[in-house]
Amino acid sequence: MRTGRLARAALSALAVATPLSAQEPDSVRASRAAGEVIDSAADVEWRTLDPENTVYFELPGGRAIIELAPEFAPRHVENIRALVRGRHFDGGAINRSQDNYVVQWTTRELEEGEAPPDHIASALPAEFEVAEAGLPFTPIPDGDVYAPEAGFVRGFPAGRDPDAGVAWMAHCYGVVGVARGNDPGSGSAAALYVVIGHSPRHLDRNLTMVGRIVTGMEHLSTLPRGTGPLGRYESRDQWVRFDRVRMGSDLPPHERTRLQILRTDSRSFEDLILASRSRLEEFFVYPSNRIGLCNVRVPTRIPESEGGRPR
Amino acid sequence: MRTGRLARAALSALAVATPLSAQEPDSVRASRAAGEVIDSAADVEWRTLDPENTVYFELPGGRAIIELAPEFAPRHVENIRALVRGRHFDGGAINRSQDNYVVQWTTRELEEGEAPPDHIASALPAEFEVAEAGLPFTPIPDGDVYAPEAGFVRGFPAGRDPDAGVAWMAHCYGVVGVARGNDPGSGSAAALYVVIGHSPRHLDRNLTMVGRIVTGMEHLSTLPRGTGPLGRYESRDQWVRFDRVRMGSDLPPHERTRLQILRTDSRSFEDLILASRSRLEEFFVYPSNRIGLCNVRVPTRIPESEGGRPR
Repeated sequence: MRTGRLARAALSALAVATPLSAQEPDSVRASRAAGEVIDSAADVEWRTLDPENTVYFELPGGRAIIELAPEFAPRHVENIRALVRGRHFDGGAINRSQDNYVVQWTTRELEEGEAPPDHIASALPAEFEVAEAGLPFTPIPDGDVYAPEAGFVRGFPAGRDPDAGVAWMAHCYGVVGVARGNDPGSGSAAALYVVIGHSPRHLDRNLTMVGRIVTGMEHLSTLPRGTGPLGRYESRDQWVRFDRVRMGSDLPPHERTRLQILRTDSRSFEDLILASRSRLEEFFVYPSNRIGLCNVRVPTRIPESEGGRPR
Repeated sequence: MRTGRLARAALSALAVATPLSAQEPDSVRASRAAGEVIDSAADVEWRTLDPENTVYFELPGGRAIIELAPEFAPRHVENIRALVRGRHFDGGAINRSQDNYVVQWTTRELEEGEAPPDHIASALPAEFEVAEAGLPFTPIPDGDVYAPEAGFVRGFPAGRDPDAGVAWMAHCYGVVGVARGNDPGSGSAAALYVVIGHSPRHLDRNLTMVGRIVTGMEHLSTLPRGTGPLGRYESRDQWVRFDRVRMGSDLPPHERTRLQILRTDSRSFEDLILASRSRLEEFFVYPSNRIGLCNVRVPTRIPESEGGRPR
């Protein structure tokens, strides 16, 4: 009976458990290792963060940077810009840290139950999915348990349903979403969370996703876990306060991080996917020749003109 | 050209990207939420940790417990028991913490380049895979990007290839493996690692897996990240020393944690898989009706007779 029920679930879900072949044409195997691909990417394949889509969080451990994704949540991103410009995250804090799940923070007003100023929305309609037409989607080749198609849109991991004509940001490590109550329209971006563990993909299409931490995840992922329900810190003494939260465009140039991101619509990114799925390094005795969406890392670098290198 | 190469990779890998139907028979939908399933599991569906397969790590932040998996790596597990009994991890330490990847530790001897006592192996043949015949395998219904079949063996997440007749432990959050050099036979379990981020499944079948942290992951996942290559701590001052590492069977009963684990070959575990893939809670507007291997959590509890409850 037990096996019967799971087997029926498998059939009805059009299970993806196709037997894999260890053999595949050499033409689609990687010819270079990932490090070599990144090091040899052309300058035009890297893009500089747009300061209007960049939020700097100064944390006790150091700087974390969110790249915003207006293509997935235009209204919420606009609200984040207004919240940051109004200094509403200054005085707010991280109040939740749940192991293998999320770290979450709020503005001071939200925590105190105060109304935000008139020009900032206190609730916005859900932006769980967007029309996929026109999005520069780079698919990954090995399928996905949760989405009909999986890939990248301007650096953001995404699912796509061509039949329904929609796409959404996927809950991979480092992705930032809008916390809400049971009402799908109850979020405003005054409470945000970031994924710090294995990808909780069951949340996909249930929350508005606004961006991704592109550097400094370690300052969030190592925070002490909260011992209250859902990993909430049980007293305000435990809150982790921001020193400062600013839009990149509001910082003087010398205070910005000169971060560049490998374009996910570039030839080198595609080479990187192939290199990551078929490891050439001596260490590997079994190159999986497969890769999952949240296992693809999007490289960043500080350009050489700024004294940096790929990281 | 770019799309062509990824499309060919997809074809040659027998990609799992089948369009999903939002409709599926009600008969395989969950009828109860996950919390209710766990709370109502019968006592016989829970098992108590075997003290011969239980290692207690006393860390500065608290206790972490490994359940060993002799069915996946009998020789390495035997070596771990000898290393723990010989107190070789006392004086050793965690010396690596790489964000979204692994935390790693070694015995004192290994770090100092000293030879272990004669009865402890300093290198063992790889145990990357085992014969699948006879293993109590509970499959999950929605397929897997990396393995022909995915499921659970006595609480451990696993991949299985029925054609090859082999199974292996999968690199999900909390799983513990044996560090090694490029030689597959160079590991001994004197250096171990635990997965602290998104599942690095490309490591599957490339390393010997010896168990899983069943409680206390937060004491490992929150450690400061190392700033050296691969997340190594750059100076010994940063090492995180164990206060004590002991086999459960060598601790007096009152010092053991009375942890029980839901049997993964039980009816309630199967109900939990169904409940986890089709969320009934009011919060969800889009129940994915799918679940990935590393998204299934294996519940633990302290039995009521010990004053505890499910966690």
